[in-house]
Amino acid sequence: MAQNIMLYWGSGSPPCWKVMIALEEKLLQGYKHKLLSFEKNEHKCEEVKALNPRAQVPTLKHGNIVVNESFAACLYLENTFKSQGTRLIPDDPAEQALVYQRMFESNNLQKKMYDVAFYEWYVPEGERLESALKRNKENLITELKLWEGYLEKTGKGSYLAGKNFTMADVVCFPIVAYFPRFHCPKERCPRLMEYYEMVKDRPSIKASWPPHWLEKPEGQDTLKNL
Amino acid sequence: MAQNIMLYWGSGSPPCWKVMIALEEKLLQGYKHKLLSFEKNEHKCEEVKALNPRAQVPTLKHGNIVVNESFAACLYLENTFKSQGTRLIPDDPAEQALVYQRMFESNNLQKKMYDVAFYEWYVPEGERLESALKRNKENLITELKLWEGYLEKTGKGSYLAGKNFTMADVVCFPIVAYFPRFHCPKERCPRLMEYYEMVKDRPSIKASWPPHWLEKPEGQDTLKNL
Repeated sequence: MAQNIMLYWGSGSPPCWKVMIALEEKLLQGYKHKLLSFEKNEHKCEEVKALNPRAQVPTLKHGNIVVNESFAACLYLENTFKSQGTRLIPDDPAEQALVYQRMFESNNLQKKMYDVAFYEWYVPEGERLESALKRNKENLITELKLWEGYLEKTGKGSYLAGKNFTMADVVCFPIVAYFPRFHCPKERCPRLMEYYEMVKDRPSIKASWPPHWLEKPEGQDTLKNL
Repeated sequence: MAQNIMLYWGSGSPPCWKVMIALEEKLLQGYKHKLLSFEKNEHKCEEVKALNPRAQVPTLKHGNIVVNESFAACLYLENTFKSQGTRLIPDDPAEQALVYQRMFESNNLQKKMYDVAFYEWYVPEGERLESALKRNKENLITELKLWEGYLEKTGKGSYLAGKNFTMADVVCFPIVAYFPRFHCPKERCPRLMEYYEMVKDRPSIKASWPPHWLEKPEGQDTLKNL
């Protein structure tokens, strides 16, 4: 089954990592893949462009079906391989609602993390402003407090949407992993860091760990002064 | 059934409008709701905060279940009322993949539209830069070309993910509707405007049309010089 799946991906990209965790959880190991270098702009190659007019990764092909947006790919995999591997979207309405809620809330966490951690990457040199970066940091601190509150409520040892590992964890973990890597002070998100420690050795996550993070375990320090 | 649904919403907010179209399509007319004024900051009231720590709308409550993120709410409604009203996520894998793909791609269209249409709203006065707004406009023009290409491929009279109205239309229409309202030149997105004309009178969309747009059909002109 996995042999007719092809993934184009980049190391460390949260959207790519999300899809890779989903592939592992759905027991689709053995899928074909191609690692592309962002530095060399390889994701803008013709092979990707032919499948994805945005020339972005992840680009996922399953047989003749192409899905590129990471949330789309994750939901597609869950629905297509529903009874295989981990059930990532529960049937129970209350549980399902919470999984969806945290899944899509993670866009806030990702955006606010990017706005600080990759500020210099996204904002051209002449346009960078102390006031904007300061506001971005405040927004990220506020965002982290929300997630701390959620984890406080669900209790120690819990996943993001309750007692089971779900799609909420699939899509959030790659974002959460940037906080320790980019030297965010632990006291900014102690519960999220407990969650990180609990989940980081899960087989699906270890198997998909960004290869350049393994080579160079220390990341930049753009979250250090949060 | 609809009587145990409560929606807090604001007029003209694309995320709120998405959920309202989904409620209509799933034949949940008669749901309870409360229109809150953004100008008066009513969405930050205690009643919303008690359900949604972000103090944002949409905030949706179904029985004891709360879902606030618009994509979460739309998917929850589709799953919970699957056999009722319009089927918004098809079973066929290829069709489903395309619906998910367009659904989540719409985040790009929304963000790039906001970055131009609401530039002055989001960027504090002292931080506004001609160069940034110019880049935002270029990004929006590039984004529109993608969607024009999609519609060219699916053909005249088609919905965003093919021959049926789906969740892709539910979440995209409220974004598309900003282009004519904010005076975007038609030649920037002729096919999208044909799509707009085709869909705007659909009952679910008419029934959920932003009330302040009805009162004042002309919007601001921040997309005029695109």
